[in-house]
Amino acid sequence: MLLTVVIGISLLALISAQQVPGNVAFTAAITEDRTVNAGNTIVFNTVLNNIGTGYDPITGVFTAPRGGVYTIAFNAVTQANSKVYVDLVHNDVYQVSAYGSSGWGSYATASTTLNLRLKKGDRVVIKARHTAYLYAEPKEIYATFTGFLVGLV
Amino acid sequence: MLLTVVIGISLLALISAQQVPGNVAFTAAITEDRTVNAGNTIVFNTVLNNIGTGYDPITGVFTAPRGGVYTIAFNAVTQANSKVYVDLVHNDVYQVSAYGSSGWGSYATASTTLNLRLKKGDRVVIKARHTAYLYAEPKEIYATFTGFLVGLV
Amino acid sequence: MLLTVVIGISLLALISAQQVPGNVAFTAAITEDRTVNAGNTIVFNTVLNNIGTGYDPITGVFTAPRGGVYTIAFNAVTQANSKVYVDLVHNDVYQVSAYGSSGWGSYATASTTLNLRLKKGDRVVIKARHTAYLYAEPKEIYATFTGFLVGLV
Repeated sequence: MLLTVVIGISLLALISAQQVPGNVAFTAAITEDRTVNAGNTIVFNTVLNNIGTGYDPITGVFTAPRGGVYTIAFNAVTQANSKVYVDLVHNDVYQVSAYGSSGWGSYATASTTLNLRLKKGDRVVIKARHTAYLYAEPKEIYATFTGFLVGLV
Repeated sequence: MLLTVVIGISLLALISAQQVPGNVAFTAAITEDRTVNAGNTIVFNTVLNNIGTGYDPITGVFTAPRGGVYTIAFNAVTQANSKVYVDLVHNDVYQVSAYGSSGWGSYATASTTLNLRLKKGDRVVIKARHTAYLYAEPKEIYATFTGFLVGLV
Repeated sequence: MLLTVVIGISLLALISAQQVPGNVAFTAAITEDRTVNAGNTIVFNTVLNNIGTGYDPITGVFTAPRGGVYTIAFNAVTQANSKVYVDLVHNDVYQVSAYGSSGWGSYATASTTLNLRLKKGDRVVIKARHTAYLYAEPKEIYATFTGFLVGLV
């Protein structure tokens, strides 16, 4: 009888240690033209979803609610005759960039996707390297910041 | 003895409630130049994989076989001197766009990646906002529609 | 008592069969301008993370440490007035391409994201279709090769 309970508790512990990925996922977007000065964090103010509430739409910062491997993706379209040149930064440490440069009357896409190993509380942001001219309208959403937990390690 | 069985059954219930993500995943592609009129759904007719059979290559519609958080990605390259300007639509509700515009003799990439929280039976499609000129050949596949379950919530 | 142990062992077997995705994930990058000749594999020599050690930074080959559905993403920016035209190849079989072409003094993005169903030991590489001019500096990382396990099937 005691053994039964011990085995039961052990199994419960095993199961909860093996929590299912996907309980952290967010996508935030920009819905109006935005010019972000060099060095500033891009604040994606419209939240499409924010499971785990790791993303803060006031600051633009994603704070990992738990440790694990996350996939992070950024997409944007420049305004005409301008650039989007941004850095993805993990706890103030540069990781990768995305770049788009458009001609007159044209627009260009900037995008990147990568995995990051985050500890609980780690912060991820998208920062403008140079002045970033992000094109957007309420029904023309191109600039998105997306992340999701893909596994525990 | 009865307790043993009760604990066993409870644990089995817990385990099956915690089904493993990834049993829904698809990538479909276009393998020949395609012009899609404004307002029409883009039908990615070549299925690279379709685990869970949520994607329908006849209609271009992905129907979630189960509820959860999905990541959806779209990529395409325009034909020369033309545009790809598309919307990602969830149950007839606009979500985000992707845009690429190319000059003479050139080609441009359009791409987007986002998370969506879908209920079982929810539909996701890529629609042409304006006439979309998608470049493709059998061994030059750029236009892809990809989705996968990242978690249950 | 015997039944208790039998149930316990069965549950443990069930749990371990249901291994958590995400224990395979990698992102590798290029940190200096690179020109890769047509037909050659692109070697992303800087490893940002490599959980499961499936990616080999010497050869550029990702070898699946276990079977499953993987999401693979590629991003790059061309050098000025040049192209990045690459193929994603699974066990020597062509899957999809990514393309970017830039004008004078400009740069263009190439990107793709797809799912692949891999068996243990399957290989995935990014190959230059034509000479690929990849732009990079140590703090301007655009060319990345990313993959992660999204599910077991």
